[in-house]
Amino acid sequence: MEFKIIEGGVCAAKGFKANGIHCGIRKNKTKKDLSLIYSEVPACTAAVYTTNLVKGAPLTVTKNHIANGYAQAVICNSGNANTCNANGIQIAEETCELLASELGLKAEDIVVASTGVIGQQMDITPFKNGIPELVKGLSTEGNQAAVEGIMTTDTKPKSISLSFEIDGKECKIGGIAKGSGMIHPNMATMLVFITTDCAISSKMLQKALSTDVKSSFNMLSVDGDTSTNDCVTVMANGLAGNQVICEEGKNFDIFMKALNTITVSLCKMIAGDGEGATKLLECKVSNAKTLEIAKTVAKSVICSSLTKAAMFGADANWGRVLCAIGYSKAMVDVNKIDVKFVSPKGEILVCKNGAGVDFSEEKAKEILLETEITIDVDLKDGEFASKAWGCDLTYDYVKINGDYRT
Amino acid sequence: MEFKIIEGGVCAAKGFKANGIHCGIRKNKTKKDLSLIYSEVPACTAAVYTTNLVKGAPLTVTKNHIANGYAQAVICNSGNANTCNANGIQIAEETCELLASELGLKAEDIVVASTGVIGQQMDITPFKNGIPELVKGLSTEGNQAAVEGIMTTDTKPKSISLSFEIDGKECKIGGIAKGSGMIHPNMATMLVFITTDCAISSKMLQKALSTDVKSSFNMLSVDGDTSTNDCVTVMANGLAGNQVICEEGKNFDIFMKALNTITVSLCKMIAGDGEGATKLLECKVSNAKTLEIAKTVAKSVICSSLTKAAMFGADANWGRVLCAIGYSKAMVDVNKIDVKFVSPKGEILVCKNGAGVDFSEEKAKEILLETEITIDVDLKDGEFASKAWGCDLTYDYVKINGDYRT
Repeated sequence: MEFKIIEGGVCAAKGFKANGIHCGIRKNKTKKDLSLIYSEVPACTAAVYTTNLVKGAPLTVTKNHIANGYAQAVICNSGNANTCNANGIQIAEETCELLASELGLKAEDIVVASTGVIGQQMDITPFKNGIPELVKGLSTEGNQAAVEGIMTTDTKPKSISLSFEIDGKECKIGGIAKGSGMIHPNMATMLVFITTDCAISSKMLQKALSTDVKSSFNMLSVDGDTSTNDCVTVMANGLAGNQVICEEGKNFDIFMKALNTITVSLCKMIAGDGEGATKLLECKVSNAKTLEIAKTVAKSVICSSLTKAAMFGADANWGRVLCAIGYSKAMVDVNKIDVKFVSPKGEILVCKNGAGVDFSEEKAKEILLETEITIDVDLKDGEFASKAWGCDLTYDYVKINGDYRT
Repeated sequence: MEFKIIEGGVCAAKGFKANGIHCGIRKNKTKKDLSLIYSEVPACTAAVYTTNLVKGAPLTVTKNHIANGYAQAVICNSGNANTCNANGIQIAEETCELLASELGLKAEDIVVASTGVIGQQMDITPFKNGIPELVKGLSTEGNQAAVEGIMTTDTKPKSISLSFEIDGKECKIGGIAKGSGMIHPNMATMLVFITTDCAISSKMLQKALSTDVKSSFNMLSVDGDTSTNDCVTVMANGLAGNQVICEEGKNFDIFMKALNTITVSLCKMIAGDGEGATKLLECKVSNAKTLEIAKTVAKSVICSSLTKAAMFGADANWGRVLCAIGYSKAMVDVNKIDVKFVSPKGEILVCKNGAGVDFSEEKAKEILLETEITIDVDLKDGEFASKAWGCDLTYDYVKINGDYRT
């Protein structure tokens, strides 16, 4: 099975168009703040949402709208999270109605999302003013504009697309993401929108997404603060013309792999561009007794402030990795653990069977000065593996999040 | 019931002496690195330990030694955590034997603890050389020396003592603590040693300590990284002459309150002197449906990196407080939550019934520029309350923990 990286992002798949504009939610007129993704035909749609009890109003509206498994457009603004507002639901619904009327759809066909400062009153006027222009500018070349419209202070746009084959038909899948980084500090919201022309039932699409996030977005941490507005949606409009995937089997497996390639790529882009980050960190855990243990250990290491700060300082302080494994509550045999640091500059064993080994601090430093580091943990206790992604903890993280909102 | 703050720390209670010296574990000769607390008579002794699976070797030895409920001395070094060492247990046991022979005790009468860098070979020589001098200098005036010997880069010594009455007899209790701060970054180890002359059985002493830590040290977080070497011990030598507390009742309650006053004071000292901290943060949760909910919410807020960074910036970003409550997994009614920021400069309501209220950013800033901030969360959902303590997240936290060990 071969995947080919292609251009186009959310517009790579047949029948999808996108756009992004400045409509006035942000004060800075050079920053886009409203994005639209549109499918020419109704698309099977699946979504997963934040588990935070405090939820953005748009998530509630979206959940209702896609309860039937279909949607045809995604609208997302940046600059205001529309969360903890008295009129949040009303604004989100009105946004969908305005867009539906412009596109000739029903409001229920629309996915709505927001990202930005929490607890700020929101006004419908910028949406009213902007939606006609937003729709008018829809284009198969609109991916870049759409990515820009959902960025807060992401330093890089995050987009990826690829092609794959099912039953000899070429299918395409692409996604865009907004990670965590902001000038006006607010929630570290992650938003991901994925489109594909692969034909797959709503039920199997939801199954694919719900399964996938367990090994992708749920293994991603920038600062341990679960956002109020996290949301991942996938729209599949079927225009690739393959036989509809309605059950598990070979074709579902191919789709899952394509989806996972997209989601893991976006995970790494989000982690590497985390607030203030200078490095992408991956924790790779192997030979765990259970999958749960592998995941728990990987997440605990990637979330450890002490480990993150050590990586910022290119300090091979492996004791912090062991410490984070120890408090993860995963049942591991500490005396079996090996730890290696790996980067494009090579790899170095720093801990064997739970105790330190002699190693060259110079070589370790050379490895850790790279911008992509893998913390390789071998539990030597079974056959399950897992990966988690995060970033280092830096002065800039504190700066970004310690600045006044005002 | 009245408690009177008195001088003396761990030497305040009758029959306790202490000392601290430089013995050579640290390279810097101006820094003490070995401390001793000694009771003239055997003392009922209780302890609680880190839940980290990776444990310092001294904790294992201490656990064995106080299995019978008694000890007569505590020895603690700084500069090396004696954790993840091949010869850790041997070193810890040998330390106890050396001290026992010098004091005329059995090795089993001794509590041993270590704090410092993890995974570093340890040598018995400094202990051999230092213990005779350490014992010779034991004094009822030795509290300050003992505190200094357990400090790593705590910026302030942490010590408190008070007197209380049981059955007309004056009892005394005092404690010292070492918090989290280091130049050579290692584990953020917390160590606390408490002494009292109150007469109380080993069983009731353990009960008092195990109950107390749930509302004191277990509600304390500097960076969410549970140490490998955390340990709290209490020695009660009975020299106050009160009738031995052998069961619950009025006298046990008085002892519990005295103990809690000591432990909460030390918690605040540790939190306020956390790595890089500029502020002590307290999260006070009231009117929760259950005690568990109150505690979960308080801990989640105090551990939130985004909230901690906002407090560093004196930014009234209450959305982050709500966010942290939302992802805590505690079942709360978000639409009932009120949030206030409180400091010696006054208080300000920023969120009512889960939504923002108009407030003066200027007044909020004035309040948040203080060095002791209470985040007051009213769940309006029941009658349980809890407090947790932590500190802000600062550039210096990153600096301290990002520096090279070498």
